[in-house]
Amino acid sequence: MSTFDKSAARSSRRRFLQAGAALAGGSAVGALGGTEAPAQALANENLPPNVPEWMKAPGAPMGDQPYGTPSPYEKGVVKNISKTLPQYLSAAGRTPLQELDGIITPNGLFYERHHGGVPAIDPAQHRLMLHGLVDRALVFTMEDIRRFPSQSRIHFIECSGNPVYTKPYGKTASDLVGLVSCAEWTGVMLKDVLEEVGLQKDAKWLVAEGADAAALTRSIPIEKCLDDAMLVYSQNGERLRPQQGYPLRLLLPGFEGNMNIKWLRRLKAVAEPAYSREETSKYTDLMPDGTAREFTFYMEAKSIILRPSGGQLMSGHGFHEISGIAWSGHGKIKRLEISVDGGKEWKPAELQEPVLTRALTRFRMPWRWDGEEVVIQSRAIDETNYVQPTLAELLAVRGVNHFYHNNAIWPWHISVLGEVSNAQA
Amino acid sequence: MSTFDKSAARSSRRRFLQAGAALAGGSAVGALGGTEAPAQALANENLPPNVPEWMKAPGAPMGDQPYGTPSPYEKGVVKNISKTLPQYLSAAGRTPLQELDGIITPNGLFYERHHGGVPAIDPAQHRLMLHGLVDRALVFTMEDIRRFPSQSRIHFIECSGNPVYTKPYGKTASDLVGLVSCAEWTGVMLKDVLEEVGLQKDAKWLVAEGADAAALTRSIPIEKCLDDAMLVYSQNGERLRPQQGYPLRLLLPGFEGNMNIKWLRRLKAVAEPAYSREETSKYTDLMPDGTAREFTFYMEAKSIILRPSGGQLMSGHGFHEISGIAWSGHGKIKRLEISVDGGKEWKPAELQEPVLTRALTRFRMPWRWDGEEVVIQSRAIDETNYVQPTLAELLAVRGVNHFYHNNAIWPWHISVLGEVSNAQA
Repeated sequence: MSTFDKSAARSSRRRFLQAGAALAGGSAVGALGGTEAPAQALANENLPPNVPEWMKAPGAPMGDQPYGTPSPYEKGVVKNISKTLPQYLSAAGRTPLQELDGIITPNGLFYERHHGGVPAIDPAQHRLMLHGLVDRALVFTMEDIRRFPSQSRIHFIECSGNPVYTKPYGKTASDLVGLVSCAEWTGVMLKDVLEEVGLQKDAKWLVAEGADAAALTRSIPIEKCLDDAMLVYSQNGERLRPQQGYPLRLLLPGFEGNMNIKWLRRLKAVAEPAYSREETSKYTDLMPDGTAREFTFYMEAKSIILRPSGGQLMSGHGFHEISGIAWSGHGKIKRLEISVDGGKEWKPAELQEPVLTRALTRFRMPWRWDGEEVVIQSRAIDETNYVQPTLAELLAVRGVNHFYHNNAIWPWHISVLGEVSNAQA
Repeated sequence: MSTFDKSAARSSRRRFLQAGAALAGGSAVGALGGTEAPAQALANENLPPNVPEWMKAPGAPMGDQPYGTPSPYEKGVVKNISKTLPQYLSAAGRTPLQELDGIITPNGLFYERHHGGVPAIDPAQHRLMLHGLVDRALVFTMEDIRRFPSQSRIHFIECSGNPVYTKPYGKTASDLVGLVSCAEWTGVMLKDVLEEVGLQKDAKWLVAEGADAAALTRSIPIEKCLDDAMLVYSQNGERLRPQQGYPLRLLLPGFEGNMNIKWLRRLKAVAEPAYSREETSKYTDLMPDGTAREFTFYMEAKSIILRPSGGQLMSGHGFHEISGIAWSGHGKIKRLEISVDGGKEWKPAELQEPVLTRALTRFRMPWRWDGEEVVIQSRAIDETNYVQPTLAELLAVRGVNHFYHNNAIWPWHISVLGEVSNAQA
């Protein structure tokens, strides 16, 4: 689907009306697993098609790109960067989710969020210190870290303000929830490194500090550190990108993004949390009774339909696959339901295997759009049986001063012209 | 591990002797899940470490990289490009496997092999024609293809000459078997598209043609086309890279690389194979009796140890994890065995979950290197119980004129200085 604009809308409408006429003639369209075939498949009287220009001369040699890049025709598929945020204080680059398929986010498009710019770290100079309530304070080089037994896991990371409550008006899926991405991470289990330093019995938290100019600092409960927490150095096979914490990042599967400390330089074992800036004045939620929800940790179950989604244009009447992504910080997605009638009826979608814990899960459902105005939406149910709420349900509990941790259902409106837009904007 | 050179060898030897002395003093090293800890972890009397330069000023802003790239410190991690091949006739770029972790190959480092350069295809102009023994010959645009139901699958692709028999002398794992990579592919099932055109009963093969200057052409047995064959448009989330067939590639999970036709423009249903150049004069194997093995299709089970591997230098005595990758065109890897005594004794390695069919599988085994000269090697056993053979076993059956389809075990030699090299070079 193309990015929406008015002239494209008119052109497409002409095209699918023509396709409709062809359909009436019964020409080139058959059954497709019980659904209707693509309308634009055309019979061609003049086979084979002409040899295209790019077959008539040798293509580009390989040496041009020892590290490859996407096709120039995909140059619009880039991170969606907030221009209003002061770059060095609070910058965000969203993944163009509606342009992507599957569950792996390519490293060049993985979402970014940082608070003091991206440091240029020499891995040979980088150190990780473990200290505090431990038997042996130790400093590790990257080579030391790599000598521990390794693990690879596919997990999502999501910013807790995805989207924030105060301006949930984005036009596209990326605008709304582009601060989530998923990768195969490789590193070492934090518990193996902690065994090396010897945690003392009063150690209930680890305070993690990043080596960026913001020295981003969060307190991590020791139970998570001894469970599936990792120190990761690779992402989708290659070393972490600078924007993702090169050369070393804390990975806390399912925890809110900012706790997965990038450029990790220090872990201090302590008895009480640090109550750092990012866990008091930020990343807490002001409730209707005036108290603040803090240390929420796990991101709740969520989903979003990506095709069709805001800014896209339906390519014609008839068969369409509805597809999108779902995830939960609490484990696996158990079920995904879709409504195509504004929320009255919900039907289960297919989940793409393998369904992995704390990873994006791709869902799909065949659908026939007959050209009428509709509202479509998805809701995720995770293995704890938690059901993704509506925005109204969330607001009723948390009030209107809430800022982070918005996991509401997000409906899309489709007009009779096939324009897809944010139904809650 | 660093790339091997003599001065690094001397420096490292000094370092691990010093570490050995520290170990004798019993300072900073404890138990690590029954294995020995990293030798270089050092106690530090002066905690916390000094604030590094990169924390003292804001880092790079985000707008610099709407599509991200690796750290400048990783600039050596690139495809390993054969300089001796004439670029437009036969070019190969190998994945730097020994620098990578996990099972996903990042798109920038996915191996390449082409026969007429990389065409620059405008996806709006690209067409796929299905014709021959079908009820309705059809021409599809990319938009048509994207309207079919989608699937995402993680699969490897491997060149059949990986390595060729005539020069199995590479120094690194990439030199030897860098023509294998693995990605999450998204596209449509070929059988769904075939249902649309209506295969006639005499259609036993599809002849697939690429839109490159070589018009690379292969015949695909119809059983595969109706099984797990796909038409893919995305790789690791984003659209295919030009080097991987942008905008459309045939994916035949487990079949030799060149059959996974890139820049796919034509599929012709026929009763007999085309006997094209690439399935007669190339990609066949001359046997000792003078006949040619042709249409071998499936890549047999194979594995390679990547850490430690040729060109690397052991970072010290004591604990090391042996890790690598295994794969089989016939399905899942069932078991992976490692020998650290030149092939006398074999012990099972751990396989990283999830183990997926026709995908790379990461394996690992803890090991203690005591500094003696050793030969290490791995062998894969797949779900059909096929066991990866030695090179001698393979040569005994296929003779010395064989060129492709070398899936022999590849041993690495480790010297007393910790230098790792090709034991069969």
